[in-house]
Amino acid sequence: MQKIFIWGMGLLGTSLGLALRKKGIQVAGVVRSENSRKVLREKGFAEVYLSHEESIWQGILSSDGIVFGTPVDAIYPVLDMLLDRQLPDNIWITDMASTKAELMQRVENLNGKLLFIGSHPMAGSDLTGPENAREDLFENATVFMTLSTKIAEKTSPAQYHQCEKEITNMWELVGARTWQVSYAIHDKWAAYLSHGLHLVSCMVSHLLKDIPEVLQLPVNPAGGSFRDITRVAGSNPALWDTIISSNQQEVIEYLKSLESLTHKWRVSMEKDAFPIQDIFKEAADLRMQILKTEDTTENK
Amino acid sequence: MQKIFIWGMGLLGTSLGLALRKKGIQVAGVVRSENSRKVLREKGFAEVYLSHEESIWQGILSSDGIVFGTPVDAIYPVLDMLLDRQLPDNIWITDMASTKAELMQRVENLNGKLLFIGSHPMAGSDLTGPENAREDLFENATVFMTLSTKIAEKTSPAQYHQCEKEITNMWELVGARTWQVSYAIHDKWAAYLSHGLHLVSCMVSHLLKDIPEVLQLPVNPAGGSFRDITRVAGSNPALWDTIISSNQQEVIEYLKSLESLTHKWRVSMEKDAFPIQDIFKEAADLRMQILKTEDTTENK
Repeated sequence: MQKIFIWGMGLLGTSLGLALRKKGIQVAGVVRSENSRKVLREKGFAEVYLSHEESIWQGILSSDGIVFGTPVDAIYPVLDMLLDRQLPDNIWITDMASTKAELMQRVENLNGKLLFIGSHPMAGSDLTGPENAREDLFENATVFMTLSTKIAEKTSPAQYHQCEKEITNMWELVGARTWQVSYAIHDKWAAYLSHGLHLVSCMVSHLLKDIPEVLQLPVNPAGGSFRDITRVAGSNPALWDTIISSNQQEVIEYLKSLESLTHKWRVSMEKDAFPIQDIFKEAADLRMQILKTEDTTENK
Repeated sequence: MQKIFIWGMGLLGTSLGLALRKKGIQVAGVVRSENSRKVLREKGFAEVYLSHEESIWQGILSSDGIVFGTPVDAIYPVLDMLLDRQLPDNIWITDMASTKAELMQRVENLNGKLLFIGSHPMAGSDLTGPENAREDLFENATVFMTLSTKIAEKTSPAQYHQCEKEITNMWELVGARTWQVSYAIHDKWAAYLSHGLHLVSCMVSHLLKDIPEVLQLPVNPAGGSFRDITRVAGSNPALWDTIISSNQQEVIEYLKSLESLTHKWRVSMEKDAFPIQDIFKEAADLRMQILKTEDTTENK
C-alpha cells in the first residue's frame, strides 16, 4: 500500500489522511469547496482535487484504494462514475459511513463490479471539517467491516480476500481495530449504539416544551446530566437526516423497544414495584461491558 | 451571618463549607464516619461531629443557620430531634436535596415550628465524598429556593422574610444565583431537568440487552454519543433510590410524556413523515435556551 485516495476530506477523511501520511503513505483527496482545499494545502496535502474537476481520475488511477469520507448518499453517484470509467479491478474501495445495509445492497446490485468492503469507524467528534481533524482520531477505535459474498463472487474471491487484507491493514496502520459483521446486524447495532441515541437526546430536549416556563428563566437551571444527555442533540441536522433515513427500519425498531421499556418502567413505578437500585446497578454494568472499562469513578 | 452548621458533609456539604470559609464564615459540620471526619480535619475543618455524638447540639446553638447536605430521607429524623430539643427560633434551616414537595409538606405538618426554606442547588459532580469537594462548585450555579406561606404563618412572616434574606445571602456569597419557585412546580421541573434523565440514561444502557452479541465483543464498539448519554447511568444507586422515590409522581408523568413522544416519532417515521432536520434544529435551540449559551460548536 503506497497511496490512498480519500473522497471527501472532512473531519474523518482528513484525520485518516493525517494518520496515513504519518505512516509514510501518500494521500490524495477530493473536497467540495475551494476553502477546504486551502485548509488541506495548509496541512501539507498537495494533491487535493475539487469534486467537479476532470483531473480526479488521474489521481485515482495511481492509488491502491479509495476511501469515502462523505455521507452515504454522496457515495452513489461516484460509484456510478467509477463504473462508467472502468476502474481497474486491482483498486479497492471502502467508506466510513455509519449505515451499511443500503450501501452494501446498492453495490451488490450495481450493473458492473467494484471491489468494495464497507467500513464504519466508531470515531468522531462534536466538531466538523478538515480544520478540526486529528491525527489520532482512529487510535483504539473499533472499525466495523462489512463484507459481501455476493460482491466477492462478482469480482473474484481471491481478489476480494486480498482487498479485505489491505483494508484491514490500513485501519490497523492508523491504530484502529477491525471487527467483521454482516451489514444487516451492523445496522441494528448502529441503531442501539448511535442512531437511536441521537433521537433519545433530541427527545430529552423536546420534552422541555411541557414546561415552557423553564425556557424563559434568566438563569441556567440545568445540571450536568441535562448537559451530557443532550450534547449530541443538534448534531449536524443535514448529516443526521442522511444517517437516519438510510437506517430507518432499524431506528423504528429501536423506538419500539424504547417505547415498550418506558411503558414497563412506568407501570412498575405506579405499582411501587420499580427496583431502582437494581436498575441503576445493571445500567452501570452494561455500560462498562460495552466501554470495556473498569473505571467506575466517572459513574458515581 | 457568622457561623453555618452543615449537617452532612459529603461532596455538596464540604464544597459549601470550603466556599463559606473562604468568605470568612465559620463552619461546623456533622458526618457519619470517622474516615470522613479525618478527611475534613485534613481540609482544616476543626469542628466536625460524628452523627451520633451528643455534643452536636452545642455546635448548633452557636450557629446562625443549619444546611442539610444529606439525602432527603436522612433529614426527617434530625428535624424531629431539633424540635424535641426546642431549636431557638432565630436559627434558620435549609437543605440541598433535589426533591422539594415531600420535604416541604413534612415541615409544614410538623408538630411544632421550624424556620425552614428549601434549597436545591443545580450543581454536582460524577464524584462523591468530601475528598472530591470543590470550593467553586456553586459558582454560577442556579439554586432553586422553595418557600411556604404555611411555614411563614406558623413561625412569623417577618422572621420568615429575614430567614429568606439570610439564605439567599448565603447562596450569593458562594457565587450562586437563587430562583424562587413553588415546591410542586420545582419537582415537575426536576423530573424534566434531572430525575427523568437518569432513567433515560439507564434505558439506553438496558436496551443493549436486545443485542447481547455486542456485550460479548472484545472491542469497545461505542462512540461518543453512547458514552455521553449513559454517563449518569449508574450514578450512586442508593442516592438515586431516595431521589426518585421522593419524586415518584412527577417521574411517572415524565415517563408518560416520553412514551407518548417516542410513539409519535416512531409512527411519523413509519409514514415517512418524520421531519428529522427540524427535530434536530429544534432540539439544539431548546438546549441552548436552557443552558443560556450561544455556543453551538459543541453541538455540531
